[in-house]
Amino acid sequence: MSFQHVAIIGLGLLGGSIGLAVQKHLPGVTTTGYDRDADVRLRARERGLASHIADTPEQAVADADLVILCVPVGTMGAAAAAISGGLRPDAVVSDVGSSKAAITKALSEALPDHTIIPAHPVAGTENSGPDAGFATLFHQRWCIITPPTGADTHKLDRLVDFWESLGAMVETMDPEHHDRVLAVTSHIPHLIAYTIVGTASDLEEVTRSEVIKYSAGGFRDFTRIAASDPTMWRDVFLNNREAVLEMLDSFLTDLAHMRESIIASDGESMFDLFTRTRAIRRSIVALGQDDARPDFGRGDHQ
Amino acid sequence: MSFQHVAIIGLGLLGGSIGLAVQKHLPGVTTTGYDRDADVRLRARERGLASHIADTPEQAVADADLVILCVPVGTMGAAAAAISGGLRPDAVVSDVGSSKAAITKALSEALPDHTIIPAHPVAGTENSGPDAGFATLFHQRWCIITPPTGADTHKLDRLVDFWESLGAMVETMDPEHHDRVLAVTSHIPHLIAYTIVGTASDLEEVTRSEVIKYSAGGFRDFTRIAASDPTMWRDVFLNNREAVLEMLDSFLTDLAHMRESIIASDGESMFDLFTRTRAIRRSIVALGQDDARPDFGRGDHQ
Repeated sequence: MSFQHVAIIGLGLLGGSIGLAVQKHLPGVTTTGYDRDADVRLRARERGLASHIADTPEQAVADADLVILCVPVGTMGAAAAAISGGLRPDAVVSDVGSSKAAITKALSEALPDHTIIPAHPVAGTENSGPDAGFATLFHQRWCIITPPTGADTHKLDRLVDFWESLGAMVETMDPEHHDRVLAVTSHIPHLIAYTIVGTASDLEEVTRSEVIKYSAGGFRDFTRIAASDPTMWRDVFLNNREAVLEMLDSFLTDLAHMRESIIASDGESMFDLFTRTRAIRRSIVALGQDDARPDFGRGDHQ
Repeated sequence: MSFQHVAIIGLGLLGGSIGLAVQKHLPGVTTTGYDRDADVRLRARERGLASHIADTPEQAVADADLVILCVPVGTMGAAAAAISGGLRPDAVVSDVGSSKAAITKALSEALPDHTIIPAHPVAGTENSGPDAGFATLFHQRWCIITPPTGADTHKLDRLVDFWESLGAMVETMDPEHHDRVLAVTSHIPHLIAYTIVGTASDLEEVTRSEVIKYSAGGFRDFTRIAASDPTMWRDVFLNNREAVLEMLDSFLTDLAHMRESIIASDGESMFDLFTRTRAIRRSIVALGQDDARPDFGRGDHQ
């Protein structure tokens, strides 16, 4: 028995993509959506991000047996509180947030009598808002589910089935481990990208227009990541502080070593590292987690 | 009057792309090629990277009025010495290296009686070797030429025309400024990418297979850059040491501030930076220096 009615709270890149993906892959399932921004609700209706866009969070969740919160990490608790009055007692409440320990705590506190099963589809683009979503966002991407101890296995199985129906591959792990894994695979890369793009735009010796002009040498890839949604990412760093700082310090230690290698003209250490890192790339491409074409098959290669 | 015969020394990604691009865009121009690796010469003949592949550097350059050295930065001096016996007195010697002050010095010392006009096409992919090149690599990309003081303006104009014929946009600047600009737009991004990929593959708390599996959250973009040619990049860092260290220290200062913002839960500073960096991205896309499609239009978006 799968979910019959999915309510989506927050209709940006992730919420919109879920709405479109459910309509494409699970045509028998009802979808309702809500966003606290009236303009977003208007656009969501135009794009058909859900079969019905409600004007209050309670209305959106009233008949739902699965509610997915797709709001920034920092507002998960408030979003949960806003739906509490309308929720069915048997509804499963899940989310798509990028940090899991903080969200698990916030949702459990806001909805102590409901089944909370947090999840994180590891998928996205640098775009945000109601125009950013598309039905295939989750194809071949991992979705990590972090069930609290003692979670109803029947409901957990239904959530696994749901994500697999949208094309995702599902893994379960505990929230703390999730937060460490994502700190290194996602949060630190974003932190570094935001920082270097900031550094480059404030230099005295090199103008901003030069940075933009000659960005094809590597910098432009960082700017794509650094164009991601500011609110979402601020909340990620505020809510996954410990794991981010732990991984950041490992990176800073390694970068200090690299700096010493350059000062010492130690070409051998550099060559060793630069050779090892190629192997990681090959594994990612082999596992279907990236495009093997050079430069991701950007338009300028024919 | 344009160049009639172009000799290409080194037949990897850049050398091979020049050979293919000249044959495509300047069909009247003769191309000869040489690589010190016999297997690369064999493959270059099979792919037709130049109209003739010579077995010695002297033979390759014997009749050329333009010689382009496409070897790693650290071997530019040796490659120049190897062609010196065969060079026409009026030949222009250029290159494609990513650091310009060190190369200008090395080439001038090896070939004191020839016209040296260094150049750097800001284009590339993570692939290397004789199979990596393609004729359109330079389309819509910048090529920075760094003419030494007093360079023959007639020959300089011909070199500008040559690169424009291959589809590039040309800018001239002095070698020291080039090295600073490229340190920030290319060298530091590569240094950071190599380092974080190394950090991620050596963690105790997160396994390498988890890093690979969940790389779609941002990390995979860094692995692409960190799959670039190890020899080339070792030589870049050894030969653009001062500018790289200067920019690295600016980045480290900014990263320390970001670390303090996380420790202090200072969401406002983060939000400000994350908003500013979006504008840089928009400028790069507007200038045609990157693909505007989300995620660069990777294959998983339809």
